[in-house]
Amino acid sequence: MIKHARPDHPIHDLVVRRWSPYAFSSRDVSTEDLRSLFEAARWAPSSYNEQPWCFIVARRSEPAPFEQVLQCLVEGNREWARQAPVLALTVARERFKRNDKPNRAAEHDVGLAVASLSVEATARGISVHQMIGILPDRAAEAFQIPEGAHALTALAIGYPAGPDEPAADVLRTRDQTPRQRKPLGEFVFGETFGTTSAIVSGA
Amino acid sequence: MIKHARPDHPIHDLVVRRWSPYAFSSRDVSTEDLRSLFEAARWAPSSYNEQPWCFIVARRSEPAPFEQVLQCLVEGNREWARQAPVLALTVARERFKRNDKPNRAAEHDVGLAVASLSVEATARGISVHQMIGILPDRAAEAFQIPEGAHALTALAIGYPAGPDEPAADVLRTRDQTPRQRKPLGEFVFGETFGTTSAIVSGA
Repeated sequence: MIKHARPDHPIHDLVVRRWSPYAFSSRDVSTEDLRSLFEAARWAPSSYNEQPWCFIVARRSEPAPFEQVLQCLVEGNREWARQAPVLALTVARERFKRNDKPNRAAEHDVGLAVASLSVEATARGISVHQMIGILPDRAAEAFQIPEGAHALTALAIGYPAGPDEPAADVLRTRDQTPRQRKPLGEFVFGETFGTTSAIVSGA
Repeated sequence: MIKHARPDHPIHDLVVRRWSPYAFSSRDVSTEDLRSLFEAARWAPSSYNEQPWCFIVARRSEPAPFEQVLQCLVEGNREWARQAPVLALTVARERFKRNDKPNRAAEHDVGLAVASLSVEATARGISVHQMIGILPDRAAEAFQIPEGAHALTALAIGYPAGPDEPAADVLRTRDQTPRQRKPLGEFVFGETFGTTSAIVSGA
């Protein structure tokens, strides 16, 4: 199962192939691959180079910590995410280290880091399915996340289930829904918010 | 001037080459390239596929709207960003369209979209320099951004200035500072927040 984007304008293969499956293969992700994924996150840009992102990572091969991360997801996500070989929580640090002022870009910059991680994953044939549906308070307690930081999202990391691998029908069905996006004209604006940019509408 | 990442673990060339210059070339970015950049943003993942990102785009070749975006940046950013051939503001929609509930992931997902745009840019030899230093209220007024949405960051988009192109010495100097990042052990955790993951520390 591979679900490519269907772009209206040419985009790089790594953007086309990135996709968030529900049905994961039981195949493990190697330590070397995981290091490269987090290394890619590391080189994301951030406001004042603060790098406000942290990750709490657990592998299914170690049942106790894996279950602990799983219990930090909302129930609907637990069902499918427990099949992934690797789970991670993202954590945003809310203040700048150098002056303790609030970092308005913290959550945004976690997004930049996770996207960079996903590029590396895609290049290695690995999929990342992000979830906003987590229980931040439970995560704070379970992993002793200190004041000034909070869990924001979770990531399921692994290989998409192949056609011959076991996966619940309901997940297969979810994975077969077509990928849809708004057209460019609905979010690339020019003179005012809501007015399509000439870049999009021009000849 | 090209400033590559110096990774500790192998990462894809597009992650290595992504970099935020201060000194931009006067060379324009083509409409085709810009369409592909926003197309890449379009295919980013988002919470409930809400796609909460919008962009307000201006080209230096059209002085009035370009100046209008420029005036939405804090002064320190205006100085160097005015050299870029393209400026954009990112705007986050704060609520889900389908039920009007707050979208906790909105700013995070803007980050995902901009990172995707940056991948496409890097693949085309184009650089994107993101700024959190903007004036959201001024942007709201200038571009009639409605209630329920807010400007979050700005992007300077263009080609980095070549060694023979004019660029202020102060910008050249800023571009020559070495790229630095925290080691993986400081943000990839395992059993508790702050404890380095075995993925990083293991043999």
